[in-house]
Amino acid sequence: MKRSSRLVSLTNFFLENPRQHRNLPYFSQKYNAAKASMSEDLDIVDQMFREEGLGYLKRTSGSAGGVMFIPESTHDNGLEFIEELCKELEDPIRILPGGYLYMSDILGDPKMVREIGRVFASKFSDMDIDVVMTVATKGIPLAYAVASFLSVPVVIVRRDPKVTEGSSVSINYVSGSSRKIQTMVLPKRSLQEGANVCIIDDFMMAGGTITGMVSLLEEFNANVAAIGVLAEADDEEEERTVEKYTSLVKISDVDLNTKKIQVLPGNFAANKK
Amino acid sequence: MKRSSRLVSLTNFFLENPRQHRNLPYFSQKYNAAKASMSEDLDIVDQMFREEGLGYLKRTSGSAGGVMFIPESTHDNGLEFIEELCKELEDPIRILPGGYLYMSDILGDPKMVREIGRVFASKFSDMDIDVVMTVATKGIPLAYAVASFLSVPVVIVRRDPKVTEGSSVSINYVSGSSRKIQTMVLPKRSLQEGANVCIIDDFMMAGGTITGMVSLLEEFNANVAAIGVLAEADDEEEERTVEKYTSLVKISDVDLNTKKIQVLPGNFAANKK
Repeated sequence: MKRSSRLVSLTNFFLENPRQHRNLPYFSQKYNAAKASMSEDLDIVDQMFREEGLGYLKRTSGSAGGVMFIPESTHDNGLEFIEELCKELEDPIRILPGGYLYMSDILGDPKMVREIGRVFASKFSDMDIDVVMTVATKGIPLAYAVASFLSVPVVIVRRDPKVTEGSSVSINYVSGSSRKIQTMVLPKRSLQEGANVCIIDDFMMAGGTITGMVSLLEEFNANVAAIGVLAEADDEEEERTVEKYTSLVKISDVDLNTKKIQVLPGNFAANKK
Repeated sequence: MKRSSRLVSLTNFFLENPRQHRNLPYFSQKYNAAKASMSEDLDIVDQMFREEGLGYLKRTSGSAGGVMFIPESTHDNGLEFIEELCKELEDPIRILPGGYLYMSDILGDPKMVREIGRVFASKFSDMDIDVVMTVATKGIPLAYAVASFLSVPVVIVRRDPKVTEGSSVSINYVSGSSRKIQTMVLPKRSLQEGANVCIIDDFMMAGGTITGMVSLLEEFNANVAAIGVLAEADDEEEERTVEKYTSLVKISDVDLNTKKIQVLPGNFAANKK
């Protein structure tokens, strides 16, 4: 196979298999090419991935050496994306009765969701994450997007148990905004003890839902490695119950009378890795 | 930029932007390369995509001509994947009380989900689909996977209305298996009149949920373009209410006593496009 064809195949391989380690002989054999040629190919792919802000190829030498694609866009790329997101969210057509913001179109766009996933996964790239967890319903696509870049599975917490998931652990928690008692359920099979978990959700008000997920993780003796929320409400009257999290945007003000919305970058912007 | 680097960049561009039309000058300008060179690059990418079963570059000539990546794996690749899936589902450890099958691990694996999406999207590739629809919760990741290959948005039907989605249309329907009356809700904003919709779900028993979604689409004057379910139950006593659908696997028998599960390929196998 010619180098040009190999490069197309290699690029697809790395993009489809992030964080999967392969040694050089694997590629030499797959493409029937000399090790030196393969090494040059990898240099070309690596350089281009870096230039395009997609991430890089992590190379290790020695007998167990090989290569792995780490998807990691830059902090600046993340900021640029967040700025666009803020503008899009400030469209007055999004205002719903009660001062809520319509975001289902953004969460319904697979490309948008993938970009949000890329920003979180890049931010959490150095952390040792075994699984991404979210609660039904709107956080689900975001959780999968993050998980696909981190190459880990997703577990979904439900509000109601399902017979098709077997025995489960449930907790009750107090919703921060409504002060109501709510339930969260996670099937026993879905999480291993000691797992390092990345919690992802679409929206955080006072943080009750996230706190609920953290409590649920305690029941599984699992660890919270990272918390990411797409949007947080900037409500100074509410005391936030969650301490360490990464938010992409902050919905700072929704004025029903003037139909003005103010959306600012979240704490992602302030905390360069 | 050298051809080798261009090929890495082009491959990533097409994989990230399926079904997005671009004309040749767009690429010539982006890479500062002659049209003839670009055309050769596209030939190389096209050939490799075909060889790897990823799809092909659809080229159109003339003044409005250009190129578009159509992700489309072959029917044989689909079958091969389905055979593996059947084997994995036949593991007796999956049996849950009541004869249900634990599938959350498969639905929680982003790579698996993506492959399922690829099979459906390839099957429905020639259809004119505007949007993918599913019902919360387990169909959601599958719907996004299909939608990402078709490059269309996803809308999620809920069992309960949410204040953050604005006014909505709801219907009542009879669940096929439990004969209970259930509710389905879709926000008014989320679907346009006349839209061609692809319905995706994880599991179909008698077909009540799918029939409910079809009825809901009638309220929006939208059309059912295609229906895809990952697994269907092979229950001869139940009369199926859904006529035309594509299933990847058929859960033919779950024997609680002998702990034997029989999973066969669904009707996808029988209907070559």
